[in-house]
Amino acid sequence: MKLLTRLSALTVLFIISACSINVSPTVKTDLENAEISINQTGKRPKNVILMIGDGMGVTQVSSAIYRNKSLHVERITNIGFSKTSSSSDLITDSAAGATAFSIGEKTYNGAIGVDKDGKPKETLLELLGNDGYSTGLIATCAITHATPASFFAHQLKRSMENEIAADMVNAPVNLFIGGGKKYFENRVDSKRKPFDNRNITKELEGKGFSFIRSLDELGTTSGKVGYFIADNQPEPILKGRDDILPRSIAPSIRYLQNESDKGFFLVVEGSQIDWGGHNNDSEYIITEMIDFDKAIGKALDFAEKDGNTLIVITADHETGGYSLRSKDGNYNELDGAFTTGGHTGAMVPVFAYGPGSEVFRGIYDNHQIYHKIRQVLGR
Amino acid sequence: MKLLTRLSALTVLFIISACSINVSPTVKTDLENAEISINQTGKRPKNVILMIGDGMGVTQVSSAIYRNKSLHVERITNIGFSKTSSSSDLITDSAAGATAFSIGEKTYNGAIGVDKDGKPKETLLELLGNDGYSTGLIATCAITHATPASFFAHQLKRSMENEIAADMVNAPVNLFIGGGKKYFENRVDSKRKPFDNRNITKELEGKGFSFIRSLDELGTTSGKVGYFIADNQPEPILKGRDDILPRSIAPSIRYLQNESDKGFFLVVEGSQIDWGGHNNDSEYIITEMIDFDKAIGKALDFAEKDGNTLIVITADHETGGYSLRSKDGNYNELDGAFTTGGHTGAMVPVFAYGPGSEVFRGIYDNHQIYHKIRQVLGR
Repeated sequence: MKLLTRLSALTVLFIISACSINVSPTVKTDLENAEISINQTGKRPKNVILMIGDGMGVTQVSSAIYRNKSLHVERITNIGFSKTSSSSDLITDSAAGATAFSIGEKTYNGAIGVDKDGKPKETLLELLGNDGYSTGLIATCAITHATPASFFAHQLKRSMENEIAADMVNAPVNLFIGGGKKYFENRVDSKRKPFDNRNITKELEGKGFSFIRSLDELGTTSGKVGYFIADNQPEPILKGRDDILPRSIAPSIRYLQNESDKGFFLVVEGSQIDWGGHNNDSEYIITEMIDFDKAIGKALDFAEKDGNTLIVITADHETGGYSLRSKDGNYNELDGAFTTGGHTGAMVPVFAYGPGSEVFRGIYDNHQIYHKIRQVLGR
Repeated sequence: MKLLTRLSALTVLFIISACSINVSPTVKTDLENAEISINQTGKRPKNVILMIGDGMGVTQVSSAIYRNKSLHVERITNIGFSKTSSSSDLITDSAAGATAFSIGEKTYNGAIGVDKDGKPKETLLELLGNDGYSTGLIATCAITHATPASFFAHQLKRSMENEIAADMVNAPVNLFIGGGKKYFENRVDSKRKPFDNRNITKELEGKGFSFIRSLDELGTTSGKVGYFIADNQPEPILKGRDDILPRSIAPSIRYLQNESDKGFFLVVEGSQIDWGGHNNDSEYIITEMIDFDKAIGKALDFAEKDGNTLIVITADHETGGYSLRSKDGNYNELDGAFTTGGHTGAMVPVFAYGPGSEVFRGIYDNHQIYHKIRQVLGR
């Protein structure tokens, strides 16, 4: 097999006219029917869990199924596809991808909670948090990183992580779990120190936050909770991160339920599936994918019993151009292979469970996920 | 961007234990609910159209959406994923892939309408044809090629195309449209000649077949119909094949409706999406994908009006490890890139429309498509 030679010789470029954005289809769809049906049944979820597998394309899911025989995500039957282009680029970054989910509009690559003109827009988390829902963010990256940041911060560039951390002070966030402690603290060695000398951790304590050091403490304090699991980025599973992501789901849900009778909105990110793709490392992808799937299982366990919780699982984009080719032409050995160290433009899957999950069937643009959640909630 | 270097340096192998077959998930699913709902509504389709995009992974669909802005397949909301492994290999070939659909069992790569022990099994087309349905096969490859062959023939190897052609003589096929004329005729220059000197075309005429030379003739003759669109393989769209595939759908449906009051079973293959993948040629993939999608549009136009037709659209496997990476790091230009000249192991999409289409939601093994169609038909 001369795959690399072949790749180099035969790869054919096709260039889409620059800046054309992939807009909603003009052909008729029967999405309307699904929308009518939810209005007819009238069943609305009380709680919403949005789970983002960063960089989780179909091959990423497939590779974890091969490894694990079955995944929790296979418990879900309502499936759709999200078209991921941003307003600036055919291939999105994670900031524009998450902001499409959080504000309901496509925006430019790098944008954190701002529209394509750089204007701050109320995010879904803010909308619901200000409306009395309890809200939570859990990620296996710094909480100031693009995906979680896009739900509570408003900054022109994803790299402005000091400013993003400061945005937490005024955000209606009840709980966050993730890395990025150094962006919040005023220490000699912290990222924040040379910036503005603010100590965001202290400011958050002034706003009612307690900082816990283990999941066991969750629920033992009153008020808001922050839990830093790393000073910057948490380790990959391959380098020793434990199952903090799946372990955090049930206690976080219990905490959020106690914080509001109205309902909760929880955003969970399996952040490092993307980094496995960037590293062109199948083992990294598979281990992070399985960790994320365990978190999906915990969320499903709750939602199945609860009956009032909508779970939406999707990705912002695919990373790596990942495929499961044969090893040296042997169709019985899979070889994880890549075409890029960056993101790709393929549609990504959407899996939805619970009341209203039927409207997530079909093929649609990424920002429609925001509108579908609002439609299902009736808000 | 040093993508190829990076690919070569960083691609990491992961090897799944040999011969382990990807079986149905052991976790609970809510497929049962969908199955209950169809029993509750009791609405069953009269007709079934199974449309196979050979080699049509999610990126293949995505690339055609970028090119065409929207596809007819986006009119469909019931979506699933098919796990494609064969009984012999983690990565299937088209013969085992189509035979899984046609006999409802995983079989070995290369098998045409036979089980994993090489035993002929009644195909879905035979089951329905013998039960009074009219049946049709339309493909943009030789009708003796793996995918269409797996619905009417029973041979140990896909390469036995002379024997496959001969199997048409006793198959309950009312209509076929495709290439491969040379496998049916006894001519000095035909493929068949050195084999057994049979003239299958003549034998088929003895069984009531008329051979037409244009779609205009379809419906002007009585009895069964064959239409050879090429002596061997039809040309790619890029080399001049016209829109015979989409054009054939409406007249074929009219013909099949006239042949039986009971209903019809039509198999349509967009055969050359796969060949574009094998050639690592994005333009080839996109043009064949759009041609197949036009055929999907014609089938949907009929089914929407008819209201009694189930359409199931899927693929046997992905081909090429195709992805839409950035061109030289520019996220606003898509570059179709490949990791192999062969097939890959990722799940492929299933799109279903019409009565019973809800049972095609979720993630399941390829051979379940056979069982789901039978379940929906109540046969």
